[in-house]
Amino acid sequence: MKIGILTSGGDCPGLNAVIRGAVLKGDRVYGDEFVGFRYGWRGVVEGDMVPLDRHTVRGLSRQGGTILGSSRTNPFEGEGGGPENIQRMMDVNGIDAMIAIGGEGTLTAARRLVDEGGINVIGVPKTIDNDLAATDYSFGFDTAVEIATEAIDRLRTTAESHQRCMIVEVMGRHVGWIALHSGMAGGAHAILIPERPQSIEQICEWVLHVRDRGRAPVVVVSEGFHLDTMEEAHSHKGLDAFNRPRLGGIGELLAPMIEERTGIESRATVIGHIQRGGVPSAYDRVLATRLGIAAVDAAQTRQWGSMVSLKGTDVEIVSIADATGGLNTVPDYRYDEAAVLFG
Amino acid sequence: MKIGILTSGGDCPGLNAVIRGAVLKGDRVYGDEFVGFRYGWRGVVEGDMVPLDRHTVRGLSRQGGTILGSSRTNPFEGEGGGPENIQRMMDVNGIDAMIAIGGEGTLTAARRLVDEGGINVIGVPKTIDNDLAATDYSFGFDTAVEIATEAIDRLRTTAESHQRCMIVEVMGRHVGWIALHSGMAGGAHAILIPERPQSIEQICEWVLHVRDRGRAPVVVVSEGFHLDTMEEAHSHKGLDAFNRPRLGGIGELLAPMIEERTGIESRATVIGHIQRGGVPSAYDRVLATRLGIAAVDAAQTRQWGSMVSLKGTDVEIVSIADATGGLNTVPDYRYDEAAVLFG
Amino acid sequence: MKIGILTSGGDCPGLNAVIRGAVLKGDRVYGDEFVGFRYGWRGVVEGDMVPLDRHTVRGLSRQGGTILGSSRTNPFEGEGGGPENIQRMMDVNGIDAMIAIGGEGTLTAARRLVDEGGINVIGVPKTIDNDLAATDYSFGFDTAVEIATEAIDRLRTTAESHQRCMIVEVMGRHVGWIALHSGMAGGAHAILIPERPQSIEQICEWVLHVRDRGRAPVVVVSEGFHLDTMEEAHSHKGLDAFNRPRLGGIGELLAPMIEERTGIESRATVIGHIQRGGVPSAYDRVLATRLGIAAVDAAQTRQWGSMVSLKGTDVEIVSIADATGGLNTVPDYRYDEAAVLFG
Amino acid sequence: MKIGILTSGGDCPGLNAVIRGAVLKGDRVYGDEFVGFRYGWRGVVEGDMVPLDRHTVRGLSRQGGTILGSSRTNPFEGEGGGPENIQRMMDVNGIDAMIAIGGEGTLTAARRLVDEGGINVIGVPKTIDNDLAATDYSFGFDTAVEIATEAIDRLRTTAESHQRCMIVEVMGRHVGWIALHSGMAGGAHAILIPERPQSIEQICEWVLHVRDRGRAPVVVVSEGFHLDTMEEAHSHKGLDAFNRPRLGGIGELLAPMIEERTGIESRATVIGHIQRGGVPSAYDRVLATRLGIAAVDAAQTRQWGSMVSLKGTDVEIVSIADATGGLNTVPDYRYDEAAVLFG
Repeated sequence: MKIGILTSGGDCPGLNAVIRGAVLKGDRVYGDEFVGFRYGWRGVVEGDMVPLDRHTVRGLSRQGGTILGSSRTNPFEGEGGGPENIQRMMDVNGIDAMIAIGGEGTLTAARRLVDEGGINVIGVPKTIDNDLAATDYSFGFDTAVEIATEAIDRLRTTAESHQRCMIVEVMGRHVGWIALHSGMAGGAHAILIPERPQSIEQICEWVLHVRDRGRAPVVVVSEGFHLDTMEEAHSHKGLDAFNRPRLGGIGELLAPMIEERTGIESRATVIGHIQRGGVPSAYDRVLATRLGIAAVDAAQTRQWGSMVSLKGTDVEIVSIADATGGLNTVPDYRYDEAAVLFG
Repeated sequence: MKIGILTSGGDCPGLNAVIRGAVLKGDRVYGDEFVGFRYGWRGVVEGDMVPLDRHTVRGLSRQGGTILGSSRTNPFEGEGGGPENIQRMMDVNGIDAMIAIGGEGTLTAARRLVDEGGINVIGVPKTIDNDLAATDYSFGFDTAVEIATEAIDRLRTTAESHQRCMIVEVMGRHVGWIALHSGMAGGAHAILIPERPQSIEQICEWVLHVRDRGRAPVVVVSEGFHLDTMEEAHSHKGLDAFNRPRLGGIGELLAPMIEERTGIESRATVIGHIQRGGVPSAYDRVLATRLGIAAVDAAQTRQWGSMVSLKGTDVEIVSIADATGGLNTVPDYRYDEAAVLFG
Repeated sequence: MKIGILTSGGDCPGLNAVIRGAVLKGDRVYGDEFVGFRYGWRGVVEGDMVPLDRHTVRGLSRQGGTILGSSRTNPFEGEGGGPENIQRMMDVNGIDAMIAIGGEGTLTAARRLVDEGGINVIGVPKTIDNDLAATDYSFGFDTAVEIATEAIDRLRTTAESHQRCMIVEVMGRHVGWIALHSGMAGGAHAILIPERPQSIEQICEWVLHVRDRGRAPVVVVSEGFHLDTMEEAHSHKGLDAFNRPRLGGIGELLAPMIEERTGIESRATVIGHIQRGGVPSAYDRVLATRLGIAAVDAAQTRQWGSMVSLKGTDVEIVSIADATGGLNTVPDYRYDEAAVLFG
Repeated sequence: MKIGILTSGGDCPGLNAVIRGAVLKGDRVYGDEFVGFRYGWRGVVEGDMVPLDRHTVRGLSRQGGTILGSSRTNPFEGEGGGPENIQRMMDVNGIDAMIAIGGEGTLTAARRLVDEGGINVIGVPKTIDNDLAATDYSFGFDTAVEIATEAIDRLRTTAESHQRCMIVEVMGRHVGWIALHSGMAGGAHAILIPERPQSIEQICEWVLHVRDRGRAPVVVVSEGFHLDTMEEAHSHKGLDAFNRPRLGGIGELLAPMIEERTGIESRATVIGHIQRGGVPSAYDRVLATRLGIAAVDAAQTRQWGSMVSLKGTDVEIVSIADATGGLNTVPDYRYDEAAVLFG
């Protein structure tokens, strides 16, 4: 079988390990041949591809980024896309199947290609934020949590030295998993996530409680968190007419609000892109390698439209539809479990 | 409720995070009072304990080791032990329940104390090696894998520079999980685990295959691995009359055997105790904190004889008997999955 | 002798190691007694102090932050300050000498206290930015460079995956040492420092050259860098009427300018406070410990007004005046040495 | 000019950064052409070389090991060596000069090639152990110290948990720099180096003193340390007839001796090869890059027989003879400075 692989969407530690796992398994066990599409769906649409063999994937388990490049191109948007063109590109190049490694958008596109175009696609879930349903975790998330936690550890000592409140903004546009885990790991005094809006009064109550115990408050906030009443933010002139923070992100918005209400000097730090680049953690390397291996197994058994996923300690095959049916949000019992440690 | 906590057996990153999680939850939600027994069961038997409060556990999520100390004392061995003495010690000190954090030995003792003495004990599984059944993973294992993987990454560059074979011995007396995961993460060319004895011929075949591809072989071996025929080892005089390696461990035994058979300069490195000390990974901090919280919940609901465990993404309550009924060995399908990458 | 220690100014990894080195040497060799002033000069002015003994400094070599706390209080400003009050506070508490650990402001104040008030002060240089003259390096700088370099390593893989230009803003208000060293270590394609203003044309030329070679440009910029003509920036509306960047710092200013001129998607990341908190590097622990030891030696020999400093591999005693006489800027030959690697 | 580069002797983090620095400077500024000899002097003798250009050295500043490979071949030993053959190989391949990156043996050979054969060689000092004179530090040392320090940090928590004495064996065959710096950084209670033999009584006195203060002793020992009377060791049967430890190294020898005399459970850990492989620290990357750049400058100015070295903050050109004239041992005042912290 000749299999094309693509990586799509934002960078994520472990992408290369998936590619390596797939190529090594396919090459050695099934005698598959591989090509890599360059820059995600763009390479598919444009027929831009490179051969992938055993030698190409050498040492990739520990290499961050993706050797194939990535983009946010969607095969159903713009010119040249759509199932017909993709099938034609595959036919011309003798490609039997595709392994699409990506997030919600990529997997939805993959599913439509299968459903609407009968194209042979296997999905591999990729999400720093851990926002995909139908998989316990995906690769990249553990690395992101580790990096955010190390940052919190460092910021904490400075908070204590200066009796400051530190607001640490981590990734998580729609779900709060990175904030929840890095906050628990780093011993945060408040964790603010998109799923659970809070009032500025509640946040300041936690902050003041910490100060009253003689400590320096550390608040971890997902980029997608919002206050439960935006009037507060508006009255502070921190939000523009479109409800977006005027300066930077939510961390930059909260810091002056907390400082004004509590009198505690407050500083925001945005961890940013370092959460999604560089050497993957061992956990993510193992998971990504296993997902790559399983994706080739799924292709071998022609389970088009399926996605590989982690369930407990096992890698399983599920329907892409299961993964794209809804967000994997932080459930209340997980947030409440962590909230015991707040304040 | 007044609850005593003890940590027993070998050191493991996350012990302090369990203690912290338990104390914070019990103190804030249930109004529990806590004491810590010093040096495991020894402190129980001798009534050696210290009060544990919110202040004591400050900052513990990221601190390696155990503030309570540990030992390998077994409450059923030696003088002073047994259920009666322990119940008496608890009565004298007004202790209602115990949380015992430990491995197979500790949990078995805990179970006997419940079964034979009617003592109120909750177990928390602790195992660097990941050898306990009834929990997907336990804390400490992820940190150990991460440290071993970093070591493999470092050793690999030296192997390549000198065209050497590197044999990396990691922990795992009875099960090969650390070797399996760190070997997959580090891109090892052979992984040798207790569950799957191999012949020296097979090992050398992998090693030579790597060399023939122009690369430097990296072999990861669990300390508990043994060759499938010990004659080989005996004829090499590497084993003594009791079948133990004469010099150091299995890594030191294999290096000269591989060098002699393949002609490739071979060096063994034993990662050793650094796998079980120091700052826990974020993964282990989160897991340990959650287990500590759940242990107090289990005490609150008086589920004596139960153990907290990880199932998928959830922390659940199981019977200690389930955890101590058998080793959590690496199943064949997991080893075979990894073996595709060998050679 | 009874010696008071204070830490002043921004946080810096190694502060605690200085305290530990001083206390252990003084306690063991000279029989000194120590107190720590809390929150820098504020503690001196207010007589807020805690005893420091062998037990207090246990484990401090690897602990970030400062157990004494810090502030930006200046003894010559506000009420209650000035040499007379400080001498009175010392007399009342029986303090014979002070060790002041801080940057330019603290050392200048220390020098005035000696010169104008005849107060017994020894200085220890503290600067993340490495901007103090009269010492080869000071503690904290190596840790900051290491953290910035790790961040650059991570950001680079994302840059390559997305064919982006990454602008990394590091600390360095007046001098470019952190940018120079982390940029060299991380293989940056341009390094922008306060000492060497550049035109936006030159920066874009470097960036385009990198792109033309098929790579993703990485630009490291000190927070204190400015373009050599501010008209550029003004015309771009990135600067306000006071010549300050409108949004965030210089990185946020450069990113859209580079993107507009080169057509390469550009993203800024601000490393921020994580550069100055947390566990010090081994290099900084050794240096800080040695400086602490030497400060007590200088007190013992009553070299008031002197400062401990690193010269080559040796710790020496210099005049505080030498350190505060001018900034330790990046010399041209060092910048030009690095510039060979640009583009 | 056409310049050949070789790396020789044991692996050392930063070798690749030297190569990169040299090639980029030579290529861009002087229009030099480069080849790399494979596996050190062996490649020189055998004429085994590969072209090195800008593309080859991409990303090398952060890559451990050496892309050229290394060996312990000496050009003055065995067949094929000697100045005449090397000059002939250079003439045949049109090579004008050589940059030899290596330790004492390599630099001595380089010097003889210049002195006896009039060959154009520039030396770059490479030593994990920091045992070369005429340079303040060389690359690789800082990384080794950092790795050893991280290991000590991890081992310490286990020591405390189990009230054990931990003996940590680090590299340093003839000089104790790694032990001295990692021991100071890690807060060791005794540091044992080749330059300062100690009696087992003195060592146990330090160990017992630590125990009496309620702490767990950590002893850092260079592999080349020896007790000041070997009778002790002999009577313990730890040494064989050739005065070499019977089992493993000095750490394995000391552990049972300390345990027997003090009654404190004692464990040895050998950090081993992980000290010399993998990603270099930022410090080492900067230093190595600068040395590579300076080596090409020295070639350009035809300073044959010279070596690049670090003096304070500057890279200078010295005579190879200065570097090979004697070991860079730990001076007494540095050991005594650290010894204040023992016990």
